[in-house]
Amino acid sequence: MARIALDAMGGDNAPDETVAGAVDAAARGVDVVLVGVPELLEAELARHGTRLPIVDAPEVIGMGEDPARALREKPAASINVAAKLVEEGNAEGMVSAGSTGAAMAAAAIHIGRLRGVRPSIASIFPTPGSPTLVLDSGANPDVGPEQLVQFAIMGSVAAEILLGVAEPRVGLLNIGEERGKGRDLEKAAYDLLEQAPINFVGNLEGRDVAEDKSDVIVTDGFTGNIFLKTMEGAAQVMIRYSMEAISTLDPEVQESVLPALGEVRRRLDYETYGGAQLLGVKGVVVIAHGMSSRVAIANALEMAAEGAKHDLPGRLASRLAS
Amino acid sequence: MARIALDAMGGDNAPDETVAGAVDAAARGVDVVLVGVPELLEAELARHGTRLPIVDAPEVIGMGEDPARALREKPAASINVAAKLVEEGNAEGMVSAGSTGAAMAAAAIHIGRLRGVRPSIASIFPTPGSPTLVLDSGANPDVGPEQLVQFAIMGSVAAEILLGVAEPRVGLLNIGEERGKGRDLEKAAYDLLEQAPINFVGNLEGRDVAEDKSDVIVTDGFTGNIFLKTMEGAAQVMIRYSMEAISTLDPEVQESVLPALGEVRRRLDYETYGGAQLLGVKGVVVIAHGMSSRVAIANALEMAAEGAKHDLPGRLASRLAS
Repeated sequence: MARIALDAMGGDNAPDETVAGAVDAAARGVDVVLVGVPELLEAELARHGTRLPIVDAPEVIGMGEDPARALREKPAASINVAAKLVEEGNAEGMVSAGSTGAAMAAAAIHIGRLRGVRPSIASIFPTPGSPTLVLDSGANPDVGPEQLVQFAIMGSVAAEILLGVAEPRVGLLNIGEERGKGRDLEKAAYDLLEQAPINFVGNLEGRDVAEDKSDVIVTDGFTGNIFLKTMEGAAQVMIRYSMEAISTLDPEVQESVLPALGEVRRRLDYETYGGAQLLGVKGVVVIAHGMSSRVAIANALEMAAEGAKHDLPGRLASRLAS
Repeated sequence: MARIALDAMGGDNAPDETVAGAVDAAARGVDVVLVGVPELLEAELARHGTRLPIVDAPEVIGMGEDPARALREKPAASINVAAKLVEEGNAEGMVSAGSTGAAMAAAAIHIGRLRGVRPSIASIFPTPGSPTLVLDSGANPDVGPEQLVQFAIMGSVAAEILLGVAEPRVGLLNIGEERGKGRDLEKAAYDLLEQAPINFVGNLEGRDVAEDKSDVIVTDGFTGNIFLKTMEGAAQVMIRYSMEAISTLDPEVQESVLPALGEVRRRLDYETYGGAQLLGVKGVVVIAHGMSSRVAIANALEMAAEGAKHDLPGRLASRLAS
């Protein structure tokens, strides 16, 4: 079983939820190593009455710090130490709920990029029917059409391995369905995507999230970030409106309805998938939401183990080279 | 009262819903003139047992036609005739639920652009607290930072007049709240927006749609389109999940809950506002959704009358020149 290093100090709920998530993942068979301040992690593990391997990382990077600078100045920060474990072959993957910028920088410095590739963040979005990978979801705000093709290839491989989809359908996020729509970027990318070794299904619009039209959605990191965060915000609006509407009903009816609303919320929940994949580096790197709970951390660790088991980085490298 | 020309042949539900909407708007005091094929419009009016002025426009542009070409080849199309009524001072505003591209082109050709301005589409989005104007929402996929400042000024004037907000708060759609986030476009625009004669409140993220943080959101037409359609799609997903969750409840509970869900749907409904404003041309132009119902058309006509009454184009021109 592949060993996964957890940046146990990263995230809003570290180390209590990170350690709890690691305990759950270990119970499900994931070989986890905790990276962080040993006394704190030991104390958390004691509460669960269990043991997990710990690697000492005394320094912590705060959310407000400049990632690149903090990484240089704090070599013993948990994110650096976790990435070094992957670099040195002592772990095959890592998970962090800390700063996305810090995780990306640590991965680039220690684990290294695949040759000629711009690493990209692939988020899993729970669209109806089947989940969809969206990339890039924030790593590269400005890209060219060639990068979108790389994202498409990487997304296809990741969807095969992580979502278990054969010949994943890849769509280009655009402002209309017809060929020729969009900016110069989309017009050029459309032609290249048709030639690429993927199952390209054409342009997709923002409203197509309601339909099961693709397994992978490709876009630049600016648009991808807006796309994902808008869905997050829209879901919050809907939940709030629903709560307000329900509060006007009879108390008895409210009681029967609230579990149904909870079910809607659960179906929209990012925690099911635990995190986003950093694709294009020579190791499995899962970046979990900063607010990750125990459940999200456990699922992120399991997904990292799945990626490592199927050699996601190696398969990305060979597909990009072909 | 300002006279508003309705492209009665434009949209998926023309001419029955367009004429019905005009009848409703007229009953609410809007001075409407119908533009289209007289026999068809007379027949619809007869069903309502009422009369409205009609201007003859025998040609129709289909949704599939190339807008620029169709406008040239069909001078007597309803969208051309409606725009000409504004051009010649026989109407102060127009409403169309037909092709957005055709409406924009007809407005540019007949009504004309304000000097030095790129016309932009401002959509009204029903965010919690108060509605928000989003522009550009599709007219200009590729823009520079100066255009974003124009959008900000035009959006401010429109929010004052159409939403009745004093000193509207203007936010820049971005991938992080801090200054310095985003593409080169957002970095440059941020500095210019700080100097502009508007109430600039900084960067807004996609998830901020759930908060009442701004009255105007400024972005390029590509991102704006993705932003709006993603919210539309996300709302559809939520409604579907809610319906599925509700269908598992007792029939009696379902019956009490469905009106509450209807209320949620209504609060998210674009029909309340009826349409998007085309800003930056020398007349009031409202572009309604292609699927506009009677209600949406009536509201679009009322909003156009409101814009004309307060001389929206004149106030835009003077604010942009100052």
